Amino acid sequence: MSVFTTVTKEQLSIWLQSYCIGELIDLQGISSGIENTNYLVTTSHRKYILTLFEKLSSSDLPYYLNLMVYLSDHNIPCPVPIADLKNNLFGNLNNKPASLVTYLPGSQIEDPTPEQCANVGKLLANMHLSTLSFKEKMSNMRGPEWRETVAPTLIPLLPYEEAKFLQKELDFQSLHQFEGLPQGVIHADLFRDNVLFNNNNISGVIDFYFACNDVLLYDLAIVTNDWCINKDKQINKDNLLALLHAYHHIRPLITDELKMWPVMLRTAALRFWISRLYDYYLPRGGEIIHAKDPNHFKQILQEHLLAQDRLSEIWI
Amino acid sequence: MSVFTTVTKEQLSIWLQSYCIGELIDLQGISSGIENTNYLVTTSHRKYILTLFEKLSSSDLPYYLNLMVYLSDHNIPCPVPIADLKNNLFGNLNNKPASLVTYLPGSQIEDPTPEQCANVGKLLANMHLSTLSFKEKMSNMRGPEWRETVAPTLIPLLPYEEAKFLQKELDFQSLHQFEGLPQGVIHADLFRDNVLFNNNNISGVIDFYFACNDVLLYDLAIVTNDWCINKDKQINKDNLLALLHAYHHIRPLITDELKMWPVMLRTAALRFWISRLYDYYLPRGGEIIHAKDPNHFKQILQEHLLAQDRLSEIWI
Repeated sequence: MSVFTTVTKEQLSIWLQSYCIGELIDLQGISSGIENTNYLVTTSHRKYILTLFEKLSSSDLPYYLNLMVYLSDHNIPCPVPIADLKNNLFGNLNNKPASLVTYLPGSQIEDPTPEQCANVGKLLANMHLSTLSFKEKMSNMRGPEWRETVAPTLIPLLPYEEAKFLQKELDFQSLHQFEGLPQGVIHADLFRDNVLFNNNNISGVIDFYFACNDVLLYDLAIVTNDWCINKDKQINKDNLLALLHAYHHIRPLITDELKMWPVMLRTAALRFWISRLYDYYLPRGGEIIHAKDPNHFKQILQEHLLAQDRLSEIWI
Repeated sequence: MSVFTTVTKEQLSIWLQSYCIGELIDLQGISSGIENTNYLVTTSHRKYILTLFEKLSSSDLPYYLNLMVYLSDHNIPCPVPIADLKNNLFGNLNNKPASLVTYLPGSQIEDPTPEQCANVGKLLANMHLSTLSFKEKMSNMRGPEWRETVAPTLIPLLPYEEAKFLQKELDFQSLHQFEGLPQGVIHADLFRDNVLFNNNNISGVIDFYFACNDVLLYDLAIVTNDWCINKDKQINKDNLLALLHAYHHIRPLITDELKMWPVMLRTAALRFWISRLYDYYLPRGGEIIHAKDPNHFKQILQEHLLAQDRLSEIWI
């Protein structure tokens, strides 16, 4: 993936004249993006991330950028979109919608400790609470409707046993509704590569482009499936308890949420299994160079299934 | 001055429940404020400044707080007001309007170098440019009308020669209008104690409670009268040239501004001479414990008068 749309220093220097962030010193393409083109931009003021949106349209962008402004106003450490002189949070660069956000220092955690999981839990609860008054709405683009649309195109491509397992899980999930659970703004992609640490403290949360309004417990399940899973794909009890306790201390979980928890862990695993299957079997025009292994989430799902009864026992 | 309104840890803990900034660890009164009560607040998230506004009314506060949010959105390093869960930038604490802003690290400069003055010039020009699209308006509460209202109450209290000098300067100033010069949002109080440095770099600009819409050159004159004045109250040429060149590089100064520059330096000195005279001769109910010496600005004004013809020569 990496850089789809090239930006030269000359083009960027002209574009930056409509901002108040000093003179351009350097720009470097960032290879890790999957959805967008990202550059690290250094000006005489500081470092920024320039994002050219390859898929998101100008009509969706305000939600994500306003959310990041809102979160930083409420003291959630996230990249802050920089407004231009006309107070717009994004503009047009080389025919793509483009925004500048502050660059956050910090590094990713590979093997999280319970203490680090607790900090993620705190952060998630603070995010969930602080956005209670965020007025704008965005539906979940990777919710049940998407699942039901995408799965039928995938099933014919899968090995027989795998197709059967996927269909069975889809049937199981279609029996469950989460609408009664507490809802709000969720990050929906809070994997280890989207959280930056400075020692044990979180210095930043990034990549809000899957954020939406949905069930809060779903966000916690997404986090659990990445931060609290051992190499054998089973739940890491210490990490999960640290996560849940820290979260619960700030946003108390309710009995109804416990009831749905084992199902929700499967829902979250299924979502990423399907999107990875999709990227693997139906790559969009050579866009994904390194599709991630879908089996990782199939295995997590299988383990959740096997441990279904015990999943309720690891709780606050 | 220092702390007029006492806030206990218990009171603050309850108040902080409407914010998303962690748990209160410590609070300490800050003695340096003249207009407001300030506390340094430490929570499990980070450090904040809590301000209880002793004079400013709830109707004026949005201008200042929204301006700080706007400036930080445009990458000017200033305290960022923290929104509460209902997205309000200020609330009510012990019957005073109260706000929380981020605490900025850094220290004040006593004897500024030309390099530090250049950084102040850059920052001032960036502030002036970035606020071109700031929609809210605030008139200058310390402008000509205030001067003409306050001076007559002061003149009878002054020694004869000083009263004569003040009246003469008021007469001179009344002959000059600045309306034709470029206008915008000005800080209006950018003295050394309102700029924080980390080595030679500015880490923060604070105290926006005199900010208003006025002539930009006036802001530059206020800065000059504090940052570019030697112990003998004469202009420090090296500092001033560094300030002007850095400013001009970002917001080019025009010929009309040069024409008014010597007068403007006197206008800015007069404003602070009068407010210090006022605090000295007419202190408000024991509020000012350490009134600042008014003579400092009288002497600067006298030196500007003597050097009037030469002031135009130190220019970009």
